[in-house]
Amino acid sequence: MPKKIRLGILGGGGDSLIGVLHRVASHINDNYQITGAVFNPDFKENIGFAEEIDVPTNRIYKDFDTFIEEEMKLPKEERIQVCSVLTPNFLHFPMAKKLLDNGFHVICEKPMTTTLDEAKILQEAHQKAGTIFALTHTYTGYPMVRQMREMIKAGALGKIHKIDARYYQGWINPIIHDKAQRSTVWRLDPKKAGISSCMGDIGVHAFNLIEYTTGLEIKSLLCDFNYLYEDNQMDVDGTVLIRMSDYVKGVIRGSQVATGEENGLAISIYGEKAAFRWEQERPNFLYKMSDTEPTQIYKPGHAYNSELSLDGTKLPAGHPEGIFDSMANIYLGVAKAIRGEAYNDGEYPTMHDGVRGMNFIEATVASHKGGNVWVDME
Amino acid sequence: MPKKIRLGILGGGGDSLIGVLHRVASHINDNYQITGAVFNPDFKENIGFAEEIDVPTNRIYKDFDTFIEEEMKLPKEERIQVCSVLTPNFLHFPMAKKLLDNGFHVICEKPMTTTLDEAKILQEAHQKAGTIFALTHTYTGYPMVRQMREMIKAGALGKIHKIDARYYQGWINPIIHDKAQRSTVWRLDPKKAGISSCMGDIGVHAFNLIEYTTGLEIKSLLCDFNYLYEDNQMDVDGTVLIRMSDYVKGVIRGSQVATGEENGLAISIYGEKAAFRWEQERPNFLYKMSDTEPTQIYKPGHAYNSELSLDGTKLPAGHPEGIFDSMANIYLGVAKAIRGEAYNDGEYPTMHDGVRGMNFIEATVASHKGGNVWVDME
Amino acid sequence: MPKKIRLGILGGGGDSLIGVLHRVASHINDNYQITGAVFNPDFKENIGFAEEIDVPTNRIYKDFDTFIEEEMKLPKEERIQVCSVLTPNFLHFPMAKKLLDNGFHVICEKPMTTTLDEAKILQEAHQKAGTIFALTHTYTGYPMVRQMREMIKAGALGKIHKIDARYYQGWINPIIHDKAQRSTVWRLDPKKAGISSCMGDIGVHAFNLIEYTTGLEIKSLLCDFNYLYEDNQMDVDGTVLIRMSDYVKGVIRGSQVATGEENGLAISIYGEKAAFRWEQERPNFLYKMSDTEPTQIYKPGHAYNSELSLDGTKLPAGHPEGIFDSMANIYLGVAKAIRGEAYNDGEYPTMHDGVRGMNFIEATVASHKGGNVWVDME
Amino acid sequence: MPKKIRLGILGGGGDSLIGVLHRVASHINDNYQITGAVFNPDFKENIGFAEEIDVPTNRIYKDFDTFIEEEMKLPKEERIQVCSVLTPNFLHFPMAKKLLDNGFHVICEKPMTTTLDEAKILQEAHQKAGTIFALTHTYTGYPMVRQMREMIKAGALGKIHKIDARYYQGWINPIIHDKAQRSTVWRLDPKKAGISSCMGDIGVHAFNLIEYTTGLEIKSLLCDFNYLYEDNQMDVDGTVLIRMSDYVKGVIRGSQVATGEENGLAISIYGEKAAFRWEQERPNFLYKMSDTEPTQIYKPGHAYNSELSLDGTKLPAGHPEGIFDSMANIYLGVAKAIRGEAYNDGEYPTMHDGVRGMNFIEATVASHKGGNVWVDME
Repeated sequence: MPKKIRLGILGGGGDSLIGVLHRVASHINDNYQITGAVFNPDFKENIGFAEEIDVPTNRIYKDFDTFIEEEMKLPKEERIQVCSVLTPNFLHFPMAKKLLDNGFHVICEKPMTTTLDEAKILQEAHQKAGTIFALTHTYTGYPMVRQMREMIKAGALGKIHKIDARYYQGWINPIIHDKAQRSTVWRLDPKKAGISSCMGDIGVHAFNLIEYTTGLEIKSLLCDFNYLYEDNQMDVDGTVLIRMSDYVKGVIRGSQVATGEENGLAISIYGEKAAFRWEQERPNFLYKMSDTEPTQIYKPGHAYNSELSLDGTKLPAGHPEGIFDSMANIYLGVAKAIRGEAYNDGEYPTMHDGVRGMNFIEATVASHKGGNVWVDME
Repeated sequence: MPKKIRLGILGGGGDSLIGVLHRVASHINDNYQITGAVFNPDFKENIGFAEEIDVPTNRIYKDFDTFIEEEMKLPKEERIQVCSVLTPNFLHFPMAKKLLDNGFHVICEKPMTTTLDEAKILQEAHQKAGTIFALTHTYTGYPMVRQMREMIKAGALGKIHKIDARYYQGWINPIIHDKAQRSTVWRLDPKKAGISSCMGDIGVHAFNLIEYTTGLEIKSLLCDFNYLYEDNQMDVDGTVLIRMSDYVKGVIRGSQVATGEENGLAISIYGEKAAFRWEQERPNFLYKMSDTEPTQIYKPGHAYNSELSLDGTKLPAGHPEGIFDSMANIYLGVAKAIRGEAYNDGEYPTMHDGVRGMNFIEATVASHKGGNVWVDME
Repeated sequence: MPKKIRLGILGGGGDSLIGVLHRVASHINDNYQITGAVFNPDFKENIGFAEEIDVPTNRIYKDFDTFIEEEMKLPKEERIQVCSVLTPNFLHFPMAKKLLDNGFHVICEKPMTTTLDEAKILQEAHQKAGTIFALTHTYTGYPMVRQMREMIKAGALGKIHKIDARYYQGWINPIIHDKAQRSTVWRLDPKKAGISSCMGDIGVHAFNLIEYTTGLEIKSLLCDFNYLYEDNQMDVDGTVLIRMSDYVKGVIRGSQVATGEENGLAISIYGEKAAFRWEQERPNFLYKMSDTEPTQIYKPGHAYNSELSLDGTKLPAGHPEGIFDSMANIYLGVAKAIRGEAYNDGEYPTMHDGVRGMNFIEATVASHKGGNVWVDME
Repeated sequence: MPKKIRLGILGGGGDSLIGVLHRVASHINDNYQITGAVFNPDFKENIGFAEEIDVPTNRIYKDFDTFIEEEMKLPKEERIQVCSVLTPNFLHFPMAKKLLDNGFHVICEKPMTTTLDEAKILQEAHQKAGTIFALTHTYTGYPMVRQMREMIKAGALGKIHKIDARYYQGWINPIIHDKAQRSTVWRLDPKKAGISSCMGDIGVHAFNLIEYTTGLEIKSLLCDFNYLYEDNQMDVDGTVLIRMSDYVKGVIRGSQVATGEENGLAISIYGEKAAFRWEQERPNFLYKMSDTEPTQIYKPGHAYNSELSLDGTKLPAGHPEGIFDSMANIYLGVAKAIRGEAYNDGEYPTMHDGVRGMNFIEATVASHKGGNVWVDME
């Protein structure tokens, strides 16, 4: 394995969820080393956070401009190679652009920019720079999403004629139904949150999932939003009719008021020969349907999967990848115990569990070898 | 957040899956720093691996005895605090014991020891040491397993009268059905793999899950193994009748020849008032059943969950925890691209995806505001 | 139980599936007696079919006009009371109208008419007649569909703000993709099959399901069809944006080219307080979702269900209603055996099964009472 | 289709569920005509019930002996051919025996007899008689159960090495946990209910399902019951270890105290090449699993199914067979309306639904043809 890549981070300090997600992701395959950052606009908090997470503080900068200035002084073999942009949405564009202009690789959170015009400018900057630019449409990392893409490319569905994608959440319900909240929350203020809430935040994921998996481009669309209340100016629900061509059509459905839905991203792709169905909340199950054969359930980690899919699987089949988190929870419990912090009984398995386990194993052997007799445990 | 805990690692070098799992888990909550290790019995490989994963090599030791000797020379505030034991099974006992005897905290892989006698000796050493000892029964880290435990403790099921736990895998099929393989593979050699294959390796997880979630202790058991072939000496399948008392009974079913099963750990717990059902392959869904009410599906991250459960949830409801891995796969693609390694098209979302996304969002707004008209994408 | 109702049947002879469905349905609750019929336009086949299914032939008429003429001569207490119209679509309107005009009750297959104008004329005739008219939107008979309706009426969802209904099938794929077939099949000929294929045949079921369960009326709609080929004039796929009011919206999706989908009728109804999800292919499972509580699964036959739902449940909870069919298959096997027809081994359980079963039961008791010992079966 | 078979019925009068089930099943394929019966030991109720369900009363007999005596006087071509025995369990044996001795075909409810000795006597009587004898292990009529049997016979699983069957219900919970009830209810009185409750009533179904689908015979078993209370003498839960041979083993699990389980019959069959999983509560889904291929979902009505399976499918794929019941519920609503009985709004679709439906269809066409414009409904 080659030396780790020097990673810079902009934003994502403190309790930021997106910060945790990017840090953990950068660790998982042992490829990156966080080398420098501006975690926080407040320099003291910035340094404090770096200390907490054991990032050396010598390359924690007071602001983004200093970050660029100082890093550019370093010789190329020491300089940060790639920078993750996790700042508020309106900063994605200027930061990404300056990074590209200075020859950095960029990993950029979504939305890439706040307007299409900015996006095109960034695209031009990227073409000039010739560096790597990645946008974190996270779900394209799921092994079964990648499997869909590869199988479609290989012709498993034949000509595609119908696509149905959905992203339904319900989290905005308590906000939208409360007049005081919906008038004041920044997420429903077009000045702060941009031109679209539901489509801009989640509909675009469904859109990307269609183009990523099928390789088709949507040519035109017709859209109907729902604002739910007259005094609300941001879409919180909408349906988009889409056309890939005159005879290849589909629908994208998005909602933030789909009561009880959690993170309901799903896609169905229908072709002449077969179809795929996949849901983000059960990401390890990919259904391949046909009019004449039994439906097949593809799962990660099997040899029948494509290289692109297998590359994204770290554990044997049947281990949901969330098992990392499960193990992490045990490490968390141990950390609390070591530090003498309060923790709940049950946060990690103890010596007692170990003794009981050995007792169980020996008892089963004794029972079987004794002719299937009852054996008492100690 | 306090300073990171100094973590030592024994074993888990090279391609070891268990090594990846423990390293990632230790990173996820920013609590641990890998400070020293014996990754590999070969010192050169040991150092090489440390360099690959950017662990400083100054405390990479040539063997376990040196590890102990050198660490003990360090002042307590620099010394490794906790050590993860990931070596082959027969080494768990001597290593864990020596670590405890020298005052280290221990995170030990399963099985804790190879015999009950060893387990008892270790238990005594642990009592003397007074340090933390954790056995990695990983699934007890799942938020919904913890939720079961807390709700049962709070009386949600009433008196429990029946328990049914299962751990079915099929991976040993290609080995067991091939005479040459089954005669030679170390896993089916009692001298190398211990007294039990199926019950020792996976049945014990089902056993632990019962005791962890219910707080009940199994008092006696009756077991029947299946060896499948006369020339095989290790159980590859078995059923265990269990009794918690004269009128509280159950069954543990284990198999490594359950064709097509991947990692089928599941438990059903029936009480006077209600019952729970949980399956490891869909770890975010916990079913609470009753004779008179609709079945309820509990999911992680909701306010209705217990503190123990919520503590193990890092993301909002509906995000399967495996999303970390999905994001990690994108980081992996970027790493390959930066290093100029070969990678598949589709390993990370690109600038093109970003421009298309902005185009989509603006088109939806234009269509809706234009009175639900068709809008072409660029 | 009162005397059976005299039922007449128009159409549905020979191998007609719809004929089987109506005959079986009329038998299930012991309410109807088939008293007269025109099963078939060919009188000889008509009589022959009546004999086959043991309907007395004295009131099997040569055509519909004779049916009306002769029945009207009978005294009211002998006359057919209700007539099921199972003829080809274009005959529904004239037959239903004449039946109503003559004072019969009517059970009419779908579509009720071929145009809205006819529908209005029929409505007027029905108002004059004052008899019962039922349209067989079959799925409104499912216990859990009825449960949705009653709970919504009782306010379980609060104000509804979003509805998403789908009816996806794939059966037309082999026809539509074959130029010869799609040019000649009557179902894609507007002259024979009416103005719409997908929406007329199945979209209308999704439409009806929305209005039946929610009590809301769709005020306006916007629709996009897909014909798939330039030379095809009938919609085989389409999406309909619907508005119940300015702020209550939804979508109806229909397809006959959704590859691999069988009979995928489904509905999600989102309200301020909670939501429902139901799918026709798993008709016994009704999901009630909320943003703050665990999802609940309602099932038929429980005391927690409404009267309207319970009325449609004939068996205890957990018995899928299809168990009637399962038992019917055993009766079918016995019938073949009695008649000396060829039948497959396994079409009905035999004496051998009975003896084995008693052996099993006695052996289990002997094993348990003997102290959990092995008992051989005979 | 040949003339209907003359069917006699013993028991099953009044509100008897088993009576409904057998009557409906006998109607479904138009093969049987109920010709004579002793529905009820009380002659007046017997006649009354026959009138209610429109069975001619001339062959409704006062008791079973008269039934035999009178039918035997009739010429063979008029005599009842087959008789369904639906009486209380202890009468199955004497009635079935006398029927066989007199040359009748018999359809007998489960349990066939109350002891193995009786079963053997009956078996002998059957061999002498040479007529048809069918035991209604109802679930063997499910299309996907039949499909399992045929595929196993054809070698789809290879050599079977492990079987796991379960029948879990929870209905006895409210009885068993109430001391007064459990001491007095006939079902827990060995004198009235026989030697076994859980195994005798439902465990035997799981047993039969194993032998029916696999063609294997269980050679020996070891069983552990749970009585739950010291003062209860009948098993309400139990686990049975089974051996088909020294290296083919399995387990049967039965319970009537599995809280919240409804009718949880399920089976998993593991072979060298593949495995099957099927559950009675989702009877249309049969899972075929393998260690190396994607899991396949077989469903009824497809051409890929065996003849034995297809023979038991009356409707196109995707129509759960329970659709008969759904249609029957609509017929029930109409019957109530015709008779002027009270009924709930929503028991059958009305003229209004028909008009709305035509309005919907025409509006979709107008919207699409108008260029995807909004169209108001009337």
